[in-house]
Amino acid sequence: MAGTATTRRSRITPEREAELYEAVLDLLREVGYDSLTMDAVAARTRSSKATLYRQWGGKAELVARAIRHHKPVDVFNVDTGSLRGDLQAMATRQDDCEMEQNSSLMRALGTAVHAHPDLLAALREWLIEPELEELGQVVQRAVDRGEVRADNAAIGYVLHMIIGAFVARTMIDDEPPTQAFLSSYIDAVVLPALVA
Amino acid sequence: MAGTATTRRSRITPEREAELYEAVLDLLREVGYDSLTMDAVAARTRSSKATLYRQWGGKAELVARAIRHHKPVDVFNVDTGSLRGDLQAMATRQDDCEMEQNSSLMRALGTAVHAHPDLLAALREWLIEPELEELGQVVQRAVDRGEVRADNAAIGYVLHMIIGAFVARTMIDDEPPTQAFLSSYIDAVVLPALVA
Repeated sequence: MAGTATTRRSRITPEREAELYEAVLDLLREVGYDSLTMDAVAARTRSSKATLYRQWGGKAELVARAIRHHKPVDVFNVDTGSLRGDLQAMATRQDDCEMEQNSSLMRALGTAVHAHPDLLAALREWLIEPELEELGQVVQRAVDRGEVRADNAAIGYVLHMIIGAFVARTMIDDEPPTQAFLSSYIDAVVLPALVA
Repeated sequence: MAGTATTRRSRITPEREAELYEAVLDLLREVGYDSLTMDAVAARTRSSKATLYRQWGGKAELVARAIRHHKPVDVFNVDTGSLRGDLQAMATRQDDCEMEQNSSLMRALGTAVHAHPDLLAALREWLIEPELEELGQVVQRAVDRGEVRADNAAIGYVLHMIIGAFVARTMIDDEPPTQAFLSSYIDAVVLPALVA
């Protein structure tokens, strides 16, 4: 799916697209979703607004795809041979700095989605669905290996467990999520629930 | 701890205090934390700003205690005799409408805490710490009964699991958290992790 963004319209090079996404994320951190305008993106990236709208349709999709580009869930195709190995690999593919940046973006967008249903739809398309699909593959392999029962009720909640820990970490412990935290949470919560 | 708010200063009756907290929550839902001013609270409740500051110190504590008042965690002293019974009782003490209201307040505040460390401190004092203490008692009783091993690593993550599911529900499933969801999540995730 990573190729979709560049094949959809051929007018923007991958390098240019990456630059543009970085600028969108910078602006998002600086001013938040509500105050982010296509004018500001156009000015910051020296693009025309017409190009932005032609390529991305609107702000919601541009933001969702900028985050997706920054956090390419589909590059994960590590198959370690065990459920624990796969989940731990997922937990450590972002370093602590990237994790904190993503966690702060997610919190900011978590508020914005309520006022902007198109943002929620775009985030679901570009981030949530691919994450669910990826986790679904990891769990399916575990079911096939006999590690997880096919009817285990926690299977439907794997992403809830992981995203939830991410989001709750700062509020409960006043500390950002880190690799060490996520790794410990997977061993303490996610694995026991899945292999119960 | 519920008595603290009224005993700290004796000038406000419990009825008046409840009215005031309701007004604060209404304003919070209408304008969000950033735009909520003590002036607006004073006007809406026909109080003097001096009284508000004397009684609550500032906006952060006023908001945290308004939420706490609305969601009195300390009234929970049901001891059902089993871990599942206690957790399920917690899951169902708010009806679906209250749960959605709380979930939307939490999301709004989850963003605001980053710009306002005093809000995070007040939420920790008035909401997170009491929740942790209450869950700690529920889990301790389960340990005493032999239902949960004292060294189970998930014990430290019970609130992460629950708050996380609450917050992740809307984003992942595009549905508000409900009693049925929380009840199912407790059986599928929280209990298996704790009794593993």
